[in-house]
Amino acid sequence: MKDEFAFISKIAPIKTYQSSLVQGIGDDAAVYRGSEKMDEVVCVDTMVEGVHFRRDTLSPYQIGKKGLAINVSDLAAMGAIPAFYLVSIAIPSSWNEEELAEIYRGMDELATRYNMDLIGGDTVSTDGPLVLTVTVMGRVERNQAKYRHQANAGDVVFLTGYVGSSAAGLELLFDKGVGGEFTVAEQVLVHAHQEPTPHVEAGRILATFHERISLNDVSDGVASEANELAEASKVKVTIEADALPFHESMKNFSREKQLDWALFGGEDFVLIGTVAKEYVNKLSERFRKRNVLFFEIGNVEAGEPGVFLKDGQQVTRLEKHGYNHFQKRG
Amino acid sequence: MKDEFAFISKIAPIKTYQSSLVQGIGDDAAVYRGSEKMDEVVCVDTMVEGVHFRRDTLSPYQIGKKGLAINVSDLAAMGAIPAFYLVSIAIPSSWNEEELAEIYRGMDELATRYNMDLIGGDTVSTDGPLVLTVTVMGRVERNQAKYRHQANAGDVVFLTGYVGSSAAGLELLFDKGVGGEFTVAEQVLVHAHQEPTPHVEAGRILATFHERISLNDVSDGVASEANELAEASKVKVTIEADALPFHESMKNFSREKQLDWALFGGEDFVLIGTVAKEYVNKLSERFRKRNVLFFEIGNVEAGEPGVFLKDGQQVTRLEKHGYNHFQKRG
Repeated sequence: MKDEFAFISKIAPIKTYQSSLVQGIGDDAAVYRGSEKMDEVVCVDTMVEGVHFRRDTLSPYQIGKKGLAINVSDLAAMGAIPAFYLVSIAIPSSWNEEELAEIYRGMDELATRYNMDLIGGDTVSTDGPLVLTVTVMGRVERNQAKYRHQANAGDVVFLTGYVGSSAAGLELLFDKGVGGEFTVAEQVLVHAHQEPTPHVEAGRILATFHERISLNDVSDGVASEANELAEASKVKVTIEADALPFHESMKNFSREKQLDWALFGGEDFVLIGTVAKEYVNKLSERFRKRNVLFFEIGNVEAGEPGVFLKDGQQVTRLEKHGYNHFQKRG
Repeated sequence: MKDEFAFISKIAPIKTYQSSLVQGIGDDAAVYRGSEKMDEVVCVDTMVEGVHFRRDTLSPYQIGKKGLAINVSDLAAMGAIPAFYLVSIAIPSSWNEEELAEIYRGMDELATRYNMDLIGGDTVSTDGPLVLTVTVMGRVERNQAKYRHQANAGDVVFLTGYVGSSAAGLELLFDKGVGGEFTVAEQVLVHAHQEPTPHVEAGRILATFHERISLNDVSDGVASEANELAEASKVKVTIEADALPFHESMKNFSREKQLDWALFGGEDFVLIGTVAKEYVNKLSERFRKRNVLFFEIGNVEAGEPGVFLKDGQQVTRLEKHGYNHFQKRG
């Protein structure tokens, strides 16, 4: 069957696809050359019922919305503009048509906000839990995609929003149940868990900043994501405990819980990144003008790759053990 | 949060993505404008253990290879050149690392043949059956993608390979088990089921033919796929029973079985399409030169959309009930 391949090569040199592969696996999304002006960004994420979500903490609508949000967050972390999505879903008989429609309505709600088109998918049956796989595609100006491996010594570490809220909301849901009575402050945290907002605008500010930026999204907690930046960039990252930004709704919880949720909780879907110290004011000014949050939370030094938490005089190493939901793998 | 969207619109008009959407859902793959010269084609398919495959008929290597082949076949049906793939897999604890590696080896084997790069994916755990979701991306010369809705009255219906072999192979596997003793002829059929070849080369001949072509791949049996062509194109399709091409390995089976497998078996992954009668000789000559099979099997007329089988003087309507494996949905 070698002929078949040779024939294809003759018509259009597939080699150009390989050489146009800007970045492979490593970051959560892949980037490849699209047109003269824009690179293409694509990624896929899977959510399994009982592993990544439970029906007693998320409604079908929220499952859909969050399933797409997780993927759009990966695009945001590359600085990309969301464009298309495809939905593949394996459905057990315990889900009815209305619940299924609610999943799609949740995705459509978020997609409409970003002008994303649903362009494909597959619907199959399963005897197991519901499995929702979303593929998203976006575009970013040529060579402007942001990666994890771009941090250098001398950089400042930043976050584009509050952390810990989602994990706090999940704990509240576990405590009181989805129908529980929540204070206004608690509702904010529960909402942060149930309907997270991907930081697309922050990603676009960073992609159009035209200075070196390293970037990642906080899906697994600050400790895990900072470690990914440190490992990919081969640098030492130090985070100041007192600089971690918490939403005011968190203030009734102990400092210990706040830190634990921020560092190891995950699913906040803000962006974490680094920028050279000399550009940090210019960058934070861009965020301020757009009314987008920007917090300096630490710094980057040369050294053995790793992440450290500085809390007053105490410095402790932060291992890369992120939020694992209720599962072993993934 | 409307601001966020407005901001994105200002930087890059997302509307251009929407207007550049050449074709939405309907065909198995979506096409959108990539560069000046090439359109992008993308599709996704999910295989569930116990629904789309069973471990007693396919090895982990074959599950991987077939999982990718099914998707590449969707690209072939659009006339596209395969380029990239992403793999999302939900794994139960009953699968070990070696078996998992075999799934990826099977995909890699097929991908290498088409110079496809694995550019992303997700690996998660599940308490249910294994769920394998593959997203594939390819490219086709601008405006040359082939669709189901292009059949016209006066067209000839063609197939690019033998049909029924996969279903025959599956029946043999059910009868004798994967370790059973198969004759050489039977091995051919079993192989057709376990390691189908997507018809990429045929798709490329058709995409570069520059005449109107309607096209679909035979994943669910000729009856089902011909009905999709008929419905999408709003035409009446007649298939000649005696023109259906069977591999010589099928000759020991009854004609009734052969027809049943071809029409309702599925998973042959040849292409079925139509072309105007005046171009059929020119087209079949192109296939002959490339040593790719091409069979005329019927014709297209104006009329109520539907598919009919002409067997001697007898004409029967073929309903769109394709091969459903062992499942209800998908």
